[in-house]
Amino acid sequence: MIKGVTVTPLKQIHDARGAVFHMVRTDAPHFAGFGEMYFSVVNPGVTKGWKRHSEMVMSLCAVQGRVKLVLMDEAAGVTQEVIFGAAEADYKLVTVPAGIWTAFSCISSEPAMLANCASILHRPDEAENVDLEKPPLSYAW
Amino acid sequence: MIKGVTVTPLKQIHDARGAVFHMVRTDAPHFAGFGEMYFSVVNPGVTKGWKRHSEMVMSLCAVQGRVKLVLMDEAAGVTQEVIFGAAEADYKLVTVPAGIWTAFSCISSEPAMLANCASILHRPDEAENVDLEKPPLSYAW
Repeated sequence: MIKGVTVTPLKQIHDARGAVFHMVRTDAPHFAGFGEMYFSVVNPGVTKGWKRHSEMVMSLCAVQGRVKLVLMDEAAGVTQEVIFGAAEADYKLVTVPAGIWTAFSCISSEPAMLANCASILHRPDEAENVDLEKPPLSYAW
Repeated sequence: MIKGVTVTPLKQIHDARGAVFHMVRTDAPHFAGFGEMYFSVVNPGVTKGWKRHSEMVMSLCAVQGRVKLVLMDEAAGVTQEVIFGAAEADYKLVTVPAGIWTAFSCISSEPAMLANCASILHRPDEAENVDLEKPPLSYAW
């Protein structure tokens, strides 16, 4: 496990009309601030990555489909995988501290949609990218 | 138009891998604070409402499906409808100030999912509900 990464089960409340899906509250122990909310859609079989933020803490859940998120703490040489999705049993919040490499792939037959409640506004100068084929630590998808 | 309600087109950036959907940033003029992020799923043909918050400002967009949102300023006797959805041309942020009655119905063949970036933590004591069949102002769906 990577230091500072947390995985928290999230609640869904279903009824005949639909559902309510919780995501994040300011009184949660893992709440890291709010800068921006956005969504990333990833098509079936596609992987997006690698990215590392120097300041942003990401709070991620999937509101459609299912994803495999791979996290790498390059300095510590530790890799961690988290699988989560929009199905009730799979619905989790993953908090990723700054300084961790991430990539995620859609492992459902429908596109996956990741919600990111980001701790700061997105700024290109606080994010690094490397090619998917050049993981910071060795990794086989 | 109801005083304080804003409708802002939102950006989607599509590529072969998927897309990025913007929602809300702290530097937006309509940003009203952050208390909680949650989602409401509404099944096709279903309407949820009526609800009025006394403190919460809601910032709403649809990340799946399409909805009709009906807003009522009871004191001013003004009703407003906003149609929005997850399709690029339909993708908008609707900011609803405190004190406005709302109800929303799914008008797509798939369930709609509304994202709410709420300005405060949800508290039952700051929300009023009335039966869907008893709109605060007369209204025909």
